Parts: sequence; C-alpha cells; structure tokens
Amino acid sequence: MTDASLVERRLRALGPGLRQFYDFPFHPVRGEGVRLYDAEGLEYLDAYNNVPHVGHGHPHVVAAIARQAARLNGNTRYLDETILDYAERLLASLPRGLDTAVFVCTGSEANDLALRLARAFTGGSGATASTTAYHGNTVAISALDVSRSPDPPQPWVATVPPPPEGDPDGTAYERGFEQAIAALAGRGHRLAAAYFDTTFANEGLDKPTPAQMERAVGRIHGAGGLYVADEIQAGLGRMGDAMWGFQRLGATPDLVTMGKPMGNGHPIGILVTRREILEAFHKRDRYFNTFGGNPVSCAAGIAVLEVMERERLQANAACVGAYLTARLDEISRQHGEIGRILGAGFFQGVEVRRPSGEEPAPDAARRVMNEMARRGVLVGLTGPARNLLKIRPPMVFARADADRLAETLDAVLADGFGQPN
Amino acid sequence: MTDASLVERRLRALGPGLRQFYDFPFHPVRGEGVRLYDAEGLEYLDAYNNVPHVGHGHPHVVAAIARQAARLNGNTRYLDETILDYAERLLASLPRGLDTAVFVCTGSEANDLALRLARAFTGGSGATASTTAYHGNTVAISALDVSRSPDPPQPWVATVPPPPEGDPDGTAYERGFEQAIAALAGRGHRLAAAYFDTTFANEGLDKPTPAQMERAVGRIHGAGGLYVADEIQAGLGRMGDAMWGFQRLGATPDLVTMGKPMGNGHPIGILVTRREILEAFHKRDRYFNTFGGNPVSCAAGIAVLEVMERERLQANAACVGAYLTARLDEISRQHGEIGRILGAGFFQGVEVRRPSGEEPAPDAARRVMNEMARRGVLVGLTGPARNLLKIRPPMVFARADADRLAETLDAVLADGFGQPN
Repeated sequence: MTDASLVERRLRALGPGLRQFYDFPFHPVRGEGVRLYDAEGLEYLDAYNNVPHVGHGHPHVVAAIARQAARLNGNTRYLDETILDYAERLLASLPRGLDTAVFVCTGSEANDLALRLARAFTGGSGATASTTAYHGNTVAISALDVSRSPDPPQPWVATVPPPPEGDPDGTAYERGFEQAIAALAGRGHRLAAAYFDTTFANEGLDKPTPAQMERAVGRIHGAGGLYVADEIQAGLGRMGDAMWGFQRLGATPDLVTMGKPMGNGHPIGILVTRREILEAFHKRDRYFNTFGGNPVSCAAGIAVLEVMERERLQANAACVGAYLTARLDEISRQHGEIGRILGAGFFQGVEVRRPSGEEPAPDAARRVMNEMARRGVLVGLTGPARNLLKIRPPMVFARADADRLAETLDAVLADGFGQPN
Repeated sequence: MTDASLVERRLRALGPGLRQFYDFPFHPVRGEGVRLYDAEGLEYLDAYNNVPHVGHGHPHVVAAIARQAARLNGNTRYLDETILDYAERLLASLPRGLDTAVFVCTGSEANDLALRLARAFTGGSGATASTTAYHGNTVAISALDVSRSPDPPQPWVATVPPPPEGDPDGTAYERGFEQAIAALAGRGHRLAAAYFDTTFANEGLDKPTPAQMERAVGRIHGAGGLYVADEIQAGLGRMGDAMWGFQRLGATPDLVTMGKPMGNGHPIGILVTRREILEAFHKRDRYFNTFGGNPVSCAAGIAVLEVMERERLQANAACVGAYLTARLDEISRQHGEIGRILGAGFFQGVEVRRPSGEEPAPDAARRVMNEMARRGVLVGLTGPARNLLKIRPPMVFARADADRLAETLDAVLADGFGQPN
C-alpha cells in the first residue's frame, strides 16, 4: 500500500476536511520512546506528541492495559478497586481541597462537564476564556473558541485578553475580566466559569505573574464564578517545575480538567473539584459516563503515574527542558529570524520572526517546521500568530535528543528554511 | 480490602452522587464471555452489559489492543492504515450514501458532533428528541433529555411523544413532529436534527411502524432537518434481525452515531454521514479529536467486527433472542405480574405490572432485578415507568444462559419477588 493510495482511501472514507499535519504524507507505523518509524523504516525524533507522555509504546503501560483488558473492563456503577487506587493517587498530587474526581474519556468531556458543574454550583450561566482559547470540541466548549468559530459569539461567552506585559500589580489583566463579566451581565448571564489553559499556549506561552493571577481570580470569585484550570496540556509534570500548570501561576482553581497525557494514548479525561461543587450538581442533576473510569483506563493511568515516578520524568522535564532552552537561546543569538524562547520544561516555543525585527513570520515558521520534519525532527506550531515552533516531546526526551533538535533547527535556518511553502 | 471499606473509599474519592447499580455492593473482579466473578469468587450471568459486546475479555480483542498499543498509538493527523481498514469495513455495512466516518471517543461525543454537523449543513439550530430520550451527557446533548433535566427546556429543543399504537398510516406520530417543529419555529429555531434512539428503549421498546417512520422522517426532511439515528444501543447486530437499528425502522438516516459496543469496552465513538454533510461543516468549521480514531481504538474495533463475523453473533442474537422471548412469554402466561415481552434479539424488556391488571409496578420490577442479581443473574431496568426488566447481554449469550435467566426469574416471582426495597 503506497502512501498515495492511503491518501486516496483517507479522502474517500474520512472526507477532505481532515488535514494532515505536514506538507508531505507522514506515515508512522511504529513508535518507541521518543522515536517514530515510518513505513519505509526511516526514524524520526518526536518532539511534538504529548499524548504518549511516558514515551511511545511504554512496555509498563502496555502491559497494564493488556493485563486489565484480559481480566475485566467494567463501569463505575460497580465497585472496583482500580479506580479508587487511581483516584487517590491523583488526588494526593493536588491541593487538599481538590478532593473529588469524576472520570470521563477526553479533555473535551472534562471541560464540558466542568461547565455543567460550575453552572449548577454558582447558579450562573456565563463563561470566559482567552481571546485565542482552545478548550475542546463539544458544542458548548467549542463556543469558547471565539477566534475560530464561524458563528457570532454565544451570549453566554465573553473573552479576555492575554496577560499584558508591564502590569506589575495585575490591574490591567484584572480589567479584562471585569469587562468580560460586565458584558456577560449585560446579556443576562452571571459568570459561572472562567477557563484558563495553564500553559497559555495559544496566547503565546507567556504566563501571567502571580499578582495578575491573584487579581484575575479574585475578580472571578467576586462575581460568583469558578476558576477552571485546563491541565490538558500543562498537567502531569510537563512544565518541569510543577506537577500541574496552575501551581506555577499562584491561585488555586475550583475545577481542574485533565486529558491528553493521562493514559499515554488510552482515552482518559478527568475532572477534579471540591466535594461541595460536585454535590451541588448531584443535588439537581446526574452524570454517568459509560467508559469513563473503567478499570482498563484506570490501570493505564496508574501505570503512567508509576513510570513518571520510577523514571523521575518531571525532574527530567525540568533538567532537559532547561538544557534545551539554553541550546535554543544560542540559536536565537546566531539567527536573526529567531526571537524569544518561550515556555518551560517540555513545552517550549521558538519565536520565528522577520529578520528585520519583531514582526511574526508564520510562513517561515511553517517552512521550518516542515523542513525539520523532512530531516527527521517532528515539531509543531502554536501562538496567536502561529509563528512559534511548538516543542512538546514525550517526557523521556533526553539531552542528546535536545542536541539533535537544536542542531537540526540550526541547519535548517542556515540552509534558508528549506523549501518554500 | 472489604467491600465496606471500598464503599467508604469510593464515597470519599468519587463523591456520594455516583450511585451503585444494585441495592448490595457488587464487586466484580474478573469477566469471561457472559460471566462475571466477584471478589469472593461467586459467579454471575451477565444479562445486562452491552459494552462487552463480544463477551468480557474476549482474547481476540485483548490481543489486538495489546499488539497495537505496543506498536503505535497515534492520531488522525498522520497517515495510518488501521483507521482506513476499520472505516471501510464499517461503511460497507451501511447504505451506500452513508459514506464518510468521523472517529470520536464516546457515544456522547458522536451525538454532540452530529448536532454541530446538522446545524452547519441545514443552517437551522433546533433539535427534537422523544419525551423520554437519553442521547448523552454533554451540555448540549443532555439538554435533549428534557424529562430528567432540572432546568427549563432550552428554546432550541422540542420533544415528540413516542410512536402511538393504532396509527396505521403514521399521521398521529407525524403530528408530534409537526407540533415540535412549529414550537421550535415559534422560538426562532429552524429544525437542524431529529434524534432517534433506534431501540426506542426509554420509550418502552415499542418501535414505530414503517408507515410511522416514513411520515416522521418526511416531516423532518420537509422542515429542512436531518434524521440522526442513535445506534449506541441498537447497533452492531444486537437486535438480531439487522446490523443497525435504523434498518428495522424503514427510513434511511442522514447521520448515524455509534458508541458503547464498538470497542468491546475500549472507548470508541463514531459518526457516519454523507460526504456533503461533513463537507458543509468543514467549509466553515473544523474538528479534531485527540484520541478519536487512534490506531489502538481502530484495532479494537476491527477485532470486534472480526469476532462478530467468525462467531456469527448477529445470527446468535436472532436465534437465542427468539428462544429467550419464547421462554419469557411462558413466564408471562404463568405469572400475573408479568405483562408483555418487548424488544427483540438481545435487547428485551419484561413488563412488570400489578397483578390486578395493566398498571406498571416499578417497585416490584426493582425488587425482582435486585433479587435476580443476588441469585447470580444480572439484569437492569428501563422504560418510561422504569418497570421493564432490561435484558441486554453480551452477544455470546447462549440458549443455556437464556434458560438460566428464565428459571431464575420464574423462581424469584414464585418466591414473592425477594426482599422488599
């Protein structure tokens, strides 16, 4: 089966709207750690995929899935010890008040359920998200994605600008929330939930200062709303200096949502909140998720946590992440097209700009990304202008991998960014 | 770990709102085929769980999951053959026009996405569902569940009564849609999607006649709306006489949603539609599902289809289902508390009523269900009055299993329904 015929079959069975990632057909057939191998046996360094958190095909996770799938796959209406072991382990990593977990299957489901809970607890209906937010793909949560929605914004949604620079006491950031809350109120919607992607990836990977975050959350709580920390990208040690992204920002969230990395590819989503919030929901409504919290998912989730500990992967993200930043900083000093190195740990962004100055260069960024992939190093794009190279590897990324990434980027830049788009 | 301490841990970590299924703690630790084994080694006949479609822990499915998880778990932005093999195989089982598949993780996600697609294609925003519908747990889809929602109905939702008896040409059923469409229009919502659970389980397992269905769908299409066949319960041969529930009803749907049984417990949801509908959506919007259609899910889905064919499980549902109906009919003739036997194949309902006549007896039904579970046979409850014993076993249910179920039910009825609630 040639790639061309796969592309043709894909178009026929899945439709033309499902885009491929790179400008050439990329056809991986095997993964191991931070490596992917394509159908021709070529090897790629995966510096993009955060879903295989502890590495592609990690044998400890695969064995846990296989063992539990053979034994029992049930649901949360029955007593089961696996879900309790997983929930307790996870809750132990969170601040004391965040004591209750609801298991779902995807990050989108977790964010969608967060809205149902926040509405039930607060009695409000409105929600805020950043101007460039992405929190998921359901009818309700895709409405938070105002910048990409083809429809006029829903009356219950208001956006807030990203945290501005030069805002030492946080009043400017707070003002965005004040205005959003007032806009919602003017349309008859009291605030229920304020969503934050704790990586601030789509905002450009610049995080708010503790003062900004404190003022923003103070304003949210003052309006009767809840702070939802979307940990789908930041969570599980990726940022290196904390297990959860919100811990790097200061304020404590009321709801925490988790997704992508939790099962190393096995579909797991989780919502963690305070008991009183879940109880307020259950007093008036109910929720059941057929696959959510099944023993196989939970066995996968536990195995991921075990590998994280055994292989000290959060510390690895901090250590190798800092090394990678240093290497990328060097490149930035040598190439005018490279600006700031943003983010931390294993979620970093490399700003690609016009050599003349500050202006973002998304076309150049795309060319660099595609050329790096052709040379065997997989990265993505992010940021409001899509001019940040997105580096977000599995957590087993090593110093030698950082070297290879930096050398490949350096060479692509030296060779004039590769082929035109 | 005693069951009591598990209950205590469950309450603490998952909250008090997550109910258990039976009135005693049921703690399965192992499953095989149609059998579950609890922590004390007691064996149960599972006549309830439709998620382990080809049987608990089927070795062919477990092996496929383990093999693919070790090899590669990716996403739909990369070329992959597994998703194409699965999509093509599935699409071949559907009418010719239903030619395009979108892979998600749950039935709820499939129904939620169906609404996004229907709105984009039709330009409308309204939806109908039956008065006792359940189609999923997202913000949008739970709004279709008007009978259980604590909130006033959303203006974009209208309900239709179940298909009435004695409606030979279907005009009475059609009138329900006519009125719902008019109610939506009066609130400024043109019809986008009409949802049908093709088992009609929550309506009491009585399906519409072909005339009723034709008139209803004619009315839906006449209003510019789309027919969504929710196959989350009926699909994949469960009803015995057809691969898909809608094929038993007559009209061809515009969107088909699938969930529960597709991966034998592995989280898979799928939406199938006509190419033009997905293209209309993609012209203005986009959709990506991180875990949806990953190679491990697709390997699980293919393995389930292979077992279905090899073990001729649809034919088994037809054959053993008919045998089960006959055994239940006998019991109905012998016990005044048992009324009609509803449904077909491996989705049947046993009506429990007051011995004096027609009145539903949900309390008695609940007592029977719990006493049967105590005697080792697991069934559930369904129907608008919750007085139908819900029999919905894995597809490998055999004639001897049907005998055991019937004998246990007979004995529980003879013994006065077991313990009071």
